[in-house]
Amino acid sequence: MANGTSDTQASNQMWGGRFASGPDAIMEEINASIDFDKKLYAEDIRGSIAHATMLAKQGIITESDRDAIVSGLNTIRGEIESGNFAFSRKLEDIHMNIEARLATLIGPAAGRLHTARSRNDQVALDFRLWVKAELQRTDAALTKLIAAFLDRAEEHADTVMPGFTHLQTAQPVTFGHHCMAYVEMFGRDRARVRHAIEHLDESPIGAAALAGTPYPIDRHMTASALGFREPTRNSIDTVSDRDFALEFLSVAAITAMHLSRLAEEIVIWTTPQFGFVRLSDAFSTGSSIMPQKKNPDAAELVRAKTGRINGSLIALLTVMKGLPLAYSKDMQEDKEQVFDAAESLELALAAMTGMVRDMTVRTDRMKEAAGSGFSTATDLADWLVREAGLPFREAHHVTGRAVAAAEARGCTLSELALDDLKAINPAINDGVYSVLTVEASVASRKSYGGTAPAEVRRQIAYWRERV
Amino acid sequence: MANGTSDTQASNQMWGGRFASGPDAIMEEINASIDFDKKLYAEDIRGSIAHATMLAKQGIITESDRDAIVSGLNTIRGEIESGNFAFSRKLEDIHMNIEARLATLIGPAAGRLHTARSRNDQVALDFRLWVKAELQRTDAALTKLIAAFLDRAEEHADTVMPGFTHLQTAQPVTFGHHCMAYVEMFGRDRARVRHAIEHLDESPIGAAALAGTPYPIDRHMTASALGFREPTRNSIDTVSDRDFALEFLSVAAITAMHLSRLAEEIVIWTTPQFGFVRLSDAFSTGSSIMPQKKNPDAAELVRAKTGRINGSLIALLTVMKGLPLAYSKDMQEDKEQVFDAAESLELALAAMTGMVRDMTVRTDRMKEAAGSGFSTATDLADWLVREAGLPFREAHHVTGRAVAAAEARGCTLSELALDDLKAINPAINDGVYSVLTVEASVASRKSYGGTAPAEVRRQIAYWRERV
Amino acid sequence: MANGTSDTQASNQMWGGRFASGPDAIMEEINASIDFDKKLYAEDIRGSIAHATMLAKQGIITESDRDAIVSGLNTIRGEIESGNFAFSRKLEDIHMNIEARLATLIGPAAGRLHTARSRNDQVALDFRLWVKAELQRTDAALTKLIAAFLDRAEEHADTVMPGFTHLQTAQPVTFGHHCMAYVEMFGRDRARVRHAIEHLDESPIGAAALAGTPYPIDRHMTASALGFREPTRNSIDTVSDRDFALEFLSVAAITAMHLSRLAEEIVIWTTPQFGFVRLSDAFSTGSSIMPQKKNPDAAELVRAKTGRINGSLIALLTVMKGLPLAYSKDMQEDKEQVFDAAESLELALAAMTGMVRDMTVRTDRMKEAAGSGFSTATDLADWLVREAGLPFREAHHVTGRAVAAAEARGCTLSELALDDLKAINPAINDGVYSVLTVEASVASRKSYGGTAPAEVRRQIAYWRERV
Amino acid sequence: MANGTSDTQASNQMWGGRFASGPDAIMEEINASIDFDKKLYAEDIRGSIAHATMLAKQGIITESDRDAIVSGLNTIRGEIESGNFAFSRKLEDIHMNIEARLATLIGPAAGRLHTARSRNDQVALDFRLWVKAELQRTDAALTKLIAAFLDRAEEHADTVMPGFTHLQTAQPVTFGHHCMAYVEMFGRDRARVRHAIEHLDESPIGAAALAGTPYPIDRHMTASALGFREPTRNSIDTVSDRDFALEFLSVAAITAMHLSRLAEEIVIWTTPQFGFVRLSDAFSTGSSIMPQKKNPDAAELVRAKTGRINGSLIALLTVMKGLPLAYSKDMQEDKEQVFDAAESLELALAAMTGMVRDMTVRTDRMKEAAGSGFSTATDLADWLVREAGLPFREAHHVTGRAVAAAEARGCTLSELALDDLKAINPAINDGVYSVLTVEASVASRKSYGGTAPAEVRRQIAYWRERV
Repeated sequence: MANGTSDTQASNQMWGGRFASGPDAIMEEINASIDFDKKLYAEDIRGSIAHATMLAKQGIITESDRDAIVSGLNTIRGEIESGNFAFSRKLEDIHMNIEARLATLIGPAAGRLHTARSRNDQVALDFRLWVKAELQRTDAALTKLIAAFLDRAEEHADTVMPGFTHLQTAQPVTFGHHCMAYVEMFGRDRARVRHAIEHLDESPIGAAALAGTPYPIDRHMTASALGFREPTRNSIDTVSDRDFALEFLSVAAITAMHLSRLAEEIVIWTTPQFGFVRLSDAFSTGSSIMPQKKNPDAAELVRAKTGRINGSLIALLTVMKGLPLAYSKDMQEDKEQVFDAAESLELALAAMTGMVRDMTVRTDRMKEAAGSGFSTATDLADWLVREAGLPFREAHHVTGRAVAAAEARGCTLSELALDDLKAINPAINDGVYSVLTVEASVASRKSYGGTAPAEVRRQIAYWRERV
Repeated sequence: MANGTSDTQASNQMWGGRFASGPDAIMEEINASIDFDKKLYAEDIRGSIAHATMLAKQGIITESDRDAIVSGLNTIRGEIESGNFAFSRKLEDIHMNIEARLATLIGPAAGRLHTARSRNDQVALDFRLWVKAELQRTDAALTKLIAAFLDRAEEHADTVMPGFTHLQTAQPVTFGHHCMAYVEMFGRDRARVRHAIEHLDESPIGAAALAGTPYPIDRHMTASALGFREPTRNSIDTVSDRDFALEFLSVAAITAMHLSRLAEEIVIWTTPQFGFVRLSDAFSTGSSIMPQKKNPDAAELVRAKTGRINGSLIALLTVMKGLPLAYSKDMQEDKEQVFDAAESLELALAAMTGMVRDMTVRTDRMKEAAGSGFSTATDLADWLVREAGLPFREAHHVTGRAVAAAEARGCTLSELALDDLKAINPAINDGVYSVLTVEASVASRKSYGGTAPAEVRRQIAYWRERV
Repeated sequence: MANGTSDTQASNQMWGGRFASGPDAIMEEINASIDFDKKLYAEDIRGSIAHATMLAKQGIITESDRDAIVSGLNTIRGEIESGNFAFSRKLEDIHMNIEARLATLIGPAAGRLHTARSRNDQVALDFRLWVKAELQRTDAALTKLIAAFLDRAEEHADTVMPGFTHLQTAQPVTFGHHCMAYVEMFGRDRARVRHAIEHLDESPIGAAALAGTPYPIDRHMTASALGFREPTRNSIDTVSDRDFALEFLSVAAITAMHLSRLAEEIVIWTTPQFGFVRLSDAFSTGSSIMPQKKNPDAAELVRAKTGRINGSLIALLTVMKGLPLAYSKDMQEDKEQVFDAAESLELALAAMTGMVRDMTVRTDRMKEAAGSGFSTATDLADWLVREAGLPFREAHHVTGRAVAAAEARGCTLSELALDDLKAINPAINDGVYSVLTVEASVASRKSYGGTAPAEVRRQIAYWRERV
Repeated sequence: MANGTSDTQASNQMWGGRFASGPDAIMEEINASIDFDKKLYAEDIRGSIAHATMLAKQGIITESDRDAIVSGLNTIRGEIESGNFAFSRKLEDIHMNIEARLATLIGPAAGRLHTARSRNDQVALDFRLWVKAELQRTDAALTKLIAAFLDRAEEHADTVMPGFTHLQTAQPVTFGHHCMAYVEMFGRDRARVRHAIEHLDESPIGAAALAGTPYPIDRHMTASALGFREPTRNSIDTVSDRDFALEFLSVAAITAMHLSRLAEEIVIWTTPQFGFVRLSDAFSTGSSIMPQKKNPDAAELVRAKTGRINGSLIALLTVMKGLPLAYSKDMQEDKEQVFDAAESLELALAAMTGMVRDMTVRTDRMKEAAGSGFSTATDLADWLVREAGLPFREAHHVTGRAVAAAEARGCTLSELALDDLKAINPAINDGVYSVLTVEASVASRKSYGGTAPAEVRRQIAYWRERV
């Protein structure tokens, strides 16, 4: 049977003394956070154990009270994890649900756990612990995605594909090089994640309601027990602050944007017209009416998550706008936005890692496309600068005319006759043909960060050391 | 015991023929919408019954198939409403869950229900029906809030309070007049809600996957059966369109903004410093650590909901950005945003209606505040224009000097001696004192829409006829 | 030489009486709105003329004052339009700039223009007049874009192309049908625009600072002179309200989203891989380094504008969140967002109208693509239901196997041998070939709103009557 | 006279070779970025000089070409800074405007400057340099604001005021403590700013169009010359990446949110009802109609900027959503959002620093308010725990009854008779009165980060070392 505290005796016990009547049904619905903040039960118990241990060490509560509290909290954790805990909306939130149950289990000692703290610093602690752990999970998920890309990049360091700007063929690149562009993006995301952890790594517990406490507490002890670098420095700020949640959402929004770009490419690349990659069946779905369809649903859903995460970011930024210090109840809206964004981001990262690992790269289609669209026109222009001494802008014009000629004849640049080229500019000689193939083009771009296979392998080696 | 279809036999049955392996676990998690779209079960069943009835009328299915379908769907509705339906994530969504259960209940006839339709038009129908009903619920909730304000306005048509600009005392107004400002806002919201209904009042069913269907269906018949004005005109648009969801969110965002302004006023007005109103216990909460607190939590939470709803609006606008026609899976993200915003808005409207109905208006505090802050300075300036013939800009300067004099003496404008006033401008005589009380000020503003009690009562009468 | 009022004498004249020192340089920079609100000069002058005319009619100012005011204002309008007006930041805004110049031109009578009004109702009037006119311009621009689509739809009512869902080939449609989907979207935008006009069509002038005025003004007279349906009903709401700006931004955001979908399609369709359309040179650009490039810049920029307009919407929603009544200075942030969004939307609509009118439709590429990807698979499934009596779900599975067979053989569905089809399901006979061509598929979808050419022409006729 | 290149000869010269007709007028308007990107002229010239110097060092251009280029660019910088440069919209952007003028000044050598680069890496460089410098300016502005707060905190380390939660009196705090809460917030903003600089500190130049270049360039040399830590590692990412702009906007949005909270407090604190602070005349404005008004316009405008900056953030996140690699023209929308947000943030920080420095703190009003609202109720509860051995929850209830008693008698807690207190709980003795004053309450909260003056001074010392 489920434990916990019965709803009927609940709320008044907590903050009722002064209130003639109980909260209205609508009030209960808008006010209660237990439906979502129960997700924080483990952080809440962990924080309470650290707090009780410190209180006993400082002589604020007795050791036997501490033992009863710790034992009771461990019992409650077991009840929650085995599904034998009856959460009550009347008890508003996870803190009150656990405390009420603790009172039932251990009696008056439960009341002493709340000495020298408040729900204001308690929720700040629970939520901060959760966000810190989530940032660590995000770091791990990003690392997996990077690893998947490194493998594909290595495999395809020589695979030629068209490089696009404006989704128009620009210059040939390698698929490995393209993969490594995403490694850079997700690598930056990791840097932001790690700095976000550094920014939040301070323990709020002990700030109490907003002003600190007269009890001789040791906040460095709780900070250390909970794995924080140090305690926060100002108690008013501590209970007013949700920067850590906003920074998580900011970092998540930029990461989601990166994922959306990759997702868009997958959607475009899996069209019959492009056909650059084929998703595995595991990451495709069919149609209820069109039997031939194989849809890139997972990529589309990942793309859509960027909207959802942007929404959460703007929601919390808007909630926090203009709130006077210290705690206001508006801030209760922080958790659902972060939980939802975190779940979306985890899912999107996992799905994308799966898609990248599983996808079939159609090297034939890529190479064929790389050769079309006059992709080596820049190489011709560069040749004219280097070998014929033309200023770049003039070389650019000459090449434009060569492209027009090839387009008129329906051939590639390398298929234009030398006479046709000479007619455009007499300085051209047959040495030019050596730069007009896609392989030659790719191999020549050896500048630092360029698309030449050797250069791409250097980038891979750089990142291999960092995952 | 729960009915439905067991997960093991599920998904492949639906769109599996061509797929070698089942969807990955991550895929299932990111892809399945049943956890939220089951909310649409009633709309789905209602739409299917209308569709089956039309198919039979047109001779596309037999009458006995229709009867089996209708009866089976009614059974399923009963199962869902009594909690005896086992939803399956493998079956992805509400449409497939219901259809699979129908197949179990009535056999092959279930397969014929999907004739001449697709999940694309089916989900468009279900969601549109839901949004239309939600808009109607919003209209009703707005009407209740307006009614609450009309009552308070009537009660307080003569209650003087300071009118603020920049949260500084500007001119005296009545509390009734202030209430009626909110009636105007929520009245505009109702106009937007009603036009939003008008814009979406077209039936999507029969658009099929995107191109229409070769079956001789009658879309006017289904439109009429489902309470729509007419069928949509273009099948590609029909399955691509989510304007109705975005328009709901836009309207909700503006309404939420109005609520946030009222909520902010309540938060400020319940401070000890203002003390203009007192919330009922039903809409206040206490503190776990500070026994004297009575917090306006409900108002704060209503204020915060504007962030949440703005987030949903921006989320869906972002999701829809740049989607090629027709249906893309990204659009599956539409429902949670709308459901969440709808729930937030309903709750906020109900809570606010309760607060407005229940709050104690402290007329003494309001009147006292109205008299401070030199609130009748404009009346003095106007008197100087009217009675002493000064141009307004000069009257404004004279009044500025009178305010400075009163501030220096620590008195109100009406407490300044006539000699002091004459020293500022000799044209002032003792007639001026008749305009310097707050009651005289309020009573004088009889212009259309002004704060004079008679004028406020005219506004109330206007709106009484419209709720 | 430029007119206006010199900066040195300026600000103190206006609201300085009580201030010991002038505003700080930073204050001037953050406070002054003249750099952007001068855009409202014509509305400001028009409003002032209507107000002065009413004041004279009501006997509040003399007829000779009115004549001087009207004549002075007309002079100022001329000065501004000919570039001979020196705007001053010290005078903060357009209202003060014009009023100060008027004082120079006509003397003390200028001071009487401000009788019975305030900057609060004045700016509400100016801005509302501007937004109303902008909505009318948007309506006209949408109509032009719709007209462009109607022409292309008519021209291509029979042009077959692949209909996409998930950007995968779904079923054949006509390009005319696809065009008409956009007509529906922009048609809905027009409906929203027109209702937005209806919602804002009330005159704010005469609300004064917030409480109305003791002067015997006639607000119906000014409302009528300025082309409004009626005056606003509540003076506090009147100066607090920016719904009309938010509603413009909401409508603009949805319209921009529609444009972004079209822009995305153009970007994809102009790739060498798709090649469905070719943009005119007028709407393409080249590359500074890649001579062969022809980039769809205009489409990309239109796509990007949706971000910009969403940003403006969220900006103003956030600004308005939680503002106590009545006017707060925060509201000064309203205009730049609306001006910027309006300019972006006008430009995007004009550019898109040009692109749609000018683009070359490559019917050969469209038709070729329509035939690939097994786009008539649904037709096969429907044939199996109709002619062979299979339940739809079973027909779907049979078709899935046929698609797999065609894919294995590298042929289209209509190229499969009858024996191969019979091997999959013995009920198939050679009648099936009549439904497997794209033309047959398109022609068969005659349901209301479907893609059959006759049906598309009916849609065109419907809309021709409405532009 | 203005220099530059005449519009008539312009654009075709640049990328026209292949284009039959010039860009349409609408196209020019939507496409040209010169109106805003001319702000980047100094960065563009600086980057070009570094690039030319490197090209010469590597033997790619001659030293005399380099000299001509450098000299010409310096001339152009002079022309721009003295207002003698005619910007041309036909030349699209700042890069082309400068390059065209350079060609006029130095002839063909100008064409060689564009060797081994593209507008794609050039704009990435210019913009990154600008954002880096802006982040440094933000760091400096934040430091000034922190310094202003440190001074006020020191001055008011003992000034008692009510600490609020839910804007209700919670516990007494000191104004110095409250100031230090903002120091923590802006201190976190600085940490984010500095990490943002670290994340972007890589040089993009040399990535060329997207694939790198065959020229033997030295990207480490240009990186070093331009003050970057190192060159970027992947050329595709380099031209696709706008993370640095998004991270600036994210950091700015959180900072603006902090400012909005402070602004809100100033607006509330300057009301006659609160009266905690008085703004200097330099940061207040008057009313055009109400002569007594002194409005906190600067604070309101700062509060509003958070909307504007959130808008810019969401705009760019939306623009970047789903863009395929590498450069797309959509990204041209990046600059205006960043420029606008940067200007808003700079202005808001400067205005806030001015307000904080100048404001008069009304210590009498603060102290009076601190004593009302039963602000020492927690102290009573804590005393009951400590001295009478009650569990906290029971002490909380006892205190609630004491508050109710005091409220009924219209007195403060410390004014309750001992008999009245004993009637509530017999364990209370006259020792209790020593904790019921606000000074005692504040002094007792000596926990780390608490509000006790000594503790606040410790916080000040900590931060003094860091500004």
